[in-house]
Amino acid sequence: MSSLAPSTLVALLHGPDQPGLVARVAGWIFERGGNILHADQHRDMEAGIFFQRIEWVPSQGAASADTAGFHSFAASLGMQAHVTASSHRPRVAIFVSKFDHCFHDLVLRWKSGDYACELVAIVSNHRELESSARGYGLPFYVIPVTSATKPEGEAAQLELLRSLDVELVILARYMQVLSEDFLEKFARPVINIHHSFLPAFAGGRPYHQAAERGVKLIGATAHYATAVLDDGPIIQQDVTRVTHRHGVDDLVRKGRDLEKIVLAQAVRWHLESRVLVYGNKTVVFD
Amino acid sequence: MSSLAPSTLVALLHGPDQPGLVARVAGWIFERGGNILHADQHRDMEAGIFFQRIEWVPSQGAASADTAGFHSFAASLGMQAHVTASSHRPRVAIFVSKFDHCFHDLVLRWKSGDYACELVAIVSNHRELESSARGYGLPFYVIPVTSATKPEGEAAQLELLRSLDVELVILARYMQVLSEDFLEKFARPVINIHHSFLPAFAGGRPYHQAAERGVKLIGATAHYATAVLDDGPIIQQDVTRVTHRHGVDDLVRKGRDLEKIVLAQAVRWHLESRVLVYGNKTVVFD
Amino acid sequence: MSSLAPSTLVALLHGPDQPGLVARVAGWIFERGGNILHADQHRDMEAGIFFQRIEWVPSQGAASADTAGFHSFAASLGMQAHVTASSHRPRVAIFVSKFDHCFHDLVLRWKSGDYACELVAIVSNHRELESSARGYGLPFYVIPVTSATKPEGEAAQLELLRSLDVELVILARYMQVLSEDFLEKFARPVINIHHSFLPAFAGGRPYHQAAERGVKLIGATAHYATAVLDDGPIIQQDVTRVTHRHGVDDLVRKGRDLEKIVLAQAVRWHLESRVLVYGNKTVVFD
Amino acid sequence: MSSLAPSTLVALLHGPDQPGLVARVAGWIFERGGNILHADQHRDMEAGIFFQRIEWVPSQGAASADTAGFHSFAASLGMQAHVTASSHRPRVAIFVSKFDHCFHDLVLRWKSGDYACELVAIVSNHRELESSARGYGLPFYVIPVTSATKPEGEAAQLELLRSLDVELVILARYMQVLSEDFLEKFARPVINIHHSFLPAFAGGRPYHQAAERGVKLIGATAHYATAVLDDGPIIQQDVTRVTHRHGVDDLVRKGRDLEKIVLAQAVRWHLESRVLVYGNKTVVFD
Repeated sequence: MSSLAPSTLVALLHGPDQPGLVARVAGWIFERGGNILHADQHRDMEAGIFFQRIEWVPSQGAASADTAGFHSFAASLGMQAHVTASSHRPRVAIFVSKFDHCFHDLVLRWKSGDYACELVAIVSNHRELESSARGYGLPFYVIPVTSATKPEGEAAQLELLRSLDVELVILARYMQVLSEDFLEKFARPVINIHHSFLPAFAGGRPYHQAAERGVKLIGATAHYATAVLDDGPIIQQDVTRVTHRHGVDDLVRKGRDLEKIVLAQAVRWHLESRVLVYGNKTVVFD
Repeated sequence: MSSLAPSTLVALLHGPDQPGLVARVAGWIFERGGNILHADQHRDMEAGIFFQRIEWVPSQGAASADTAGFHSFAASLGMQAHVTASSHRPRVAIFVSKFDHCFHDLVLRWKSGDYACELVAIVSNHRELESSARGYGLPFYVIPVTSATKPEGEAAQLELLRSLDVELVILARYMQVLSEDFLEKFARPVINIHHSFLPAFAGGRPYHQAAERGVKLIGATAHYATAVLDDGPIIQQDVTRVTHRHGVDDLVRKGRDLEKIVLAQAVRWHLESRVLVYGNKTVVFD
Repeated sequence: MSSLAPSTLVALLHGPDQPGLVARVAGWIFERGGNILHADQHRDMEAGIFFQRIEWVPSQGAASADTAGFHSFAASLGMQAHVTASSHRPRVAIFVSKFDHCFHDLVLRWKSGDYACELVAIVSNHRELESSARGYGLPFYVIPVTSATKPEGEAAQLELLRSLDVELVILARYMQVLSEDFLEKFARPVINIHHSFLPAFAGGRPYHQAAERGVKLIGATAHYATAVLDDGPIIQQDVTRVTHRHGVDDLVRKGRDLEKIVLAQAVRWHLESRVLVYGNKTVVFD
Repeated sequence: MSSLAPSTLVALLHGPDQPGLVARVAGWIFERGGNILHADQHRDMEAGIFFQRIEWVPSQGAASADTAGFHSFAASLGMQAHVTASSHRPRVAIFVSKFDHCFHDLVLRWKSGDYACELVAIVSNHRELESSARGYGLPFYVIPVTSATKPEGEAAQLELLRSLDVELVILARYMQVLSEDFLEKFARPVINIHHSFLPAFAGGRPYHQAAERGVKLIGATAHYATAVLDDGPIIQQDVTRVTHRHGVDDLVRKGRDLEKIVLAQAVRWHLESRVLVYGNKTVVFD
């Protein structure tokens, strides 16, 4: 968003469907002098749920009041709402291990202004990417984690995230599984990139699994991390064609491009408040 | 749409952008007891134009009044509107020559219930597809057209289309260029499929042009026909990969699948009132 | 292949890799006066296996001798070979149930000359497609199969296939699982289309499974049928993008296009002797 | 290629087709004790031209003799050949201006070992990327070029390329057109990335042209630079979907990912001796 763009509010809301919701929400904003820029809604006909992303320019000085007011208004309709100001730049941490392709890709996009966020920490269980991170001028934190030291490692990670007030963690090919306990305590979104077309080839060594099965396409999946490994709500997926000529090494190499693009897109959508999670699925207002 | 779905109204509207449009349109429908099912809008920031597709269930017995009323309401906002009832099944004619792949594809989709329209005529300048058309139970009209007889041929086509009250013509690899005069007199939408990724390879023998240039992807483009050949508003495009191993014959064969799918999708979007034309471009609310 | 194309032999061979194989095979053909048109090989470096597809014009009158000779020659190299004459048109049966999209698609491609085969039977456990099949001038056989009558039904199918000397069975959304016993007794290739991106969503109702999981792409997979359901060697796969706006009905509709194209491509490759099966995978020389 | 892979020779050859070519080439290598790893050939049936890429492990100590000998052998068949040793790492220069996405992408791939080449110079007409280049430890040369100073600028570039013995120039969104004179004098391959699906939108501001025309896909094309702007032999192309919601800025942003991947793939194929140019087209043995 250019510096000349007006500051807007974005609401993501969902709840039981009922007649008149589109008009009521639009009316509420209009009455307060707001100007709606975008409004996109979806109805899950089977489940009877209404979903909406609505973005508006509040009237002069009303951003804060509108934010609070909209939550109450949504509650009065039996809906859950999440309102974000476009001027808010969330604080983000990237977790990495030794693979550097997603790391470089995310950081370069961020440096070029693609992501409206603050990149406050690169966290790793290894030192390999330390000099690269520092070369980018980014704080790098090494917190070793092994299966034996996981509780202590995760405690240290949590303390770091809290001290930095991190609002989003991106697992950029971070090679440790976060425990259910960690996710519960962090209680904020964690986006992971898995190097397969989920639900195929969940778990370890997905490219080996793909080569073994003889698939003709390999994939990558960006999803929110949940307590069940590789089972969280999917944000974005893509695939690329492979043939018998591609060995596992080739799948790994070709997969890197997929991983970068799929993760980058998912992060972008998340930061633009375009992703609404319900149950184990996402509604992406792109 | 299943037979149990409620009859809805769909409005496509566009005009100069101004604050409050989303709320006003939603409010107008709400006040008349309508229930908005879908509303999708777009702003062309540079041109300052607002576009919207909105679909609602009118209150009992109000469909006709709402249709007329909405046009007046839109005009009062300085907008152009086009309102269609989902119960209306437009009358469609397919123009063909000798190639049969798009013809079969469209007819089979229509027979399987994919298209909410009446297929009232297959029109051709050749007899090759007559028995296939009659096998499907469709009226087949032969109207020979050559460069020498084009005015008479087009006059006969126009008379046929008027007598059948045809609301949409689909050129399913029809091998004659419709004259500007024909298009003006018909004055209703004509969808054409061109077998290239326009604007590349407009005009004749696009697969030969593609082979000559050595491109690595071939394409197909569905667009509204206008007075300028292959230059009308694009509705849908797609491409598929080719290599040096593919000769012109292979491009023709691979292209057939592209042409079928691209044309089928464009027709579907048109019939569902999802395509709004402005200038030489389209807004597709998919 | 046009009628002017010379009759060729195509050999698919594979076996333990060893130095000089490419030269020896080419030399064997050259010495007999053959002219190699295409030769494509692949080495599985890990498994140490050599694969080749080689197509040549035998010297005048030598097609039969070359075919027999090549088998012996390959055996002398420790390789398995399968040689086919391009003039041979395999006898094919299509199994269908009630869905007709793959059925129409395959038959129309065959009628347009895309497939060098004889279509000798449409076999179904239902009568729905009988008139369509007969409309195409194709023999239609109804063999009811239920879980209770499966042994008798499959026995009748096998007898029919043998009496017609069928060399390839295509399951075009045939809704019964063929038993291991059937596959062993038929002992010839059976190509199935599964409406998911295998190995994801094997088994029943894959579009429902996909909607449930919230994937962002749906797929289709053509594979050789084996005793394990949806687990045979994959010939071709493709995917298409879906969003939260697509309900199960939309997945079914969008999936139909995928199923048609993926199955059509797999059948084409098989008929052109481009698919070599080893273990549970395929090498596709496209 | 891992360090344990044997050093191989790769020949690209083409010339008038004649019977027995596959066998003769394979025989020539076999007689000298070479072991063919890969052999891929193509016949342009219309033009009567034979193309082949063949890779072999020469017998111990024979690499140099085989290289020279193969050229003579090919000439005796009336063919042109180009033989490269896999151990040879070509010296490469990247030309950049201010855009940095392709620059970072290529350099990071090179640093991760994807490209078997020496990156000997980053050449620019601006200083913007100097610190990034130096941060990567790469020599950075600023040679200002304006329309007024083009002859002097190009002379300086040529002198630099010669002094560094550069064998390949990559134009990574370099914003100056190289003159015909430069290309003739350099006389070695120059790969350019153009940000459209050529031949559509050649020349300047292709994303603006694409937005103006209302296309539904945008593309990128990697090609060898020739005297005619954006008209050289195409190596690789790809496209991505856009909608009416994407303004020019979005096309630019989405296009960056396309440009990176298309250029990276073309460079990789070139460095692996997989691209054979004939006339204004390429045969890519992938």
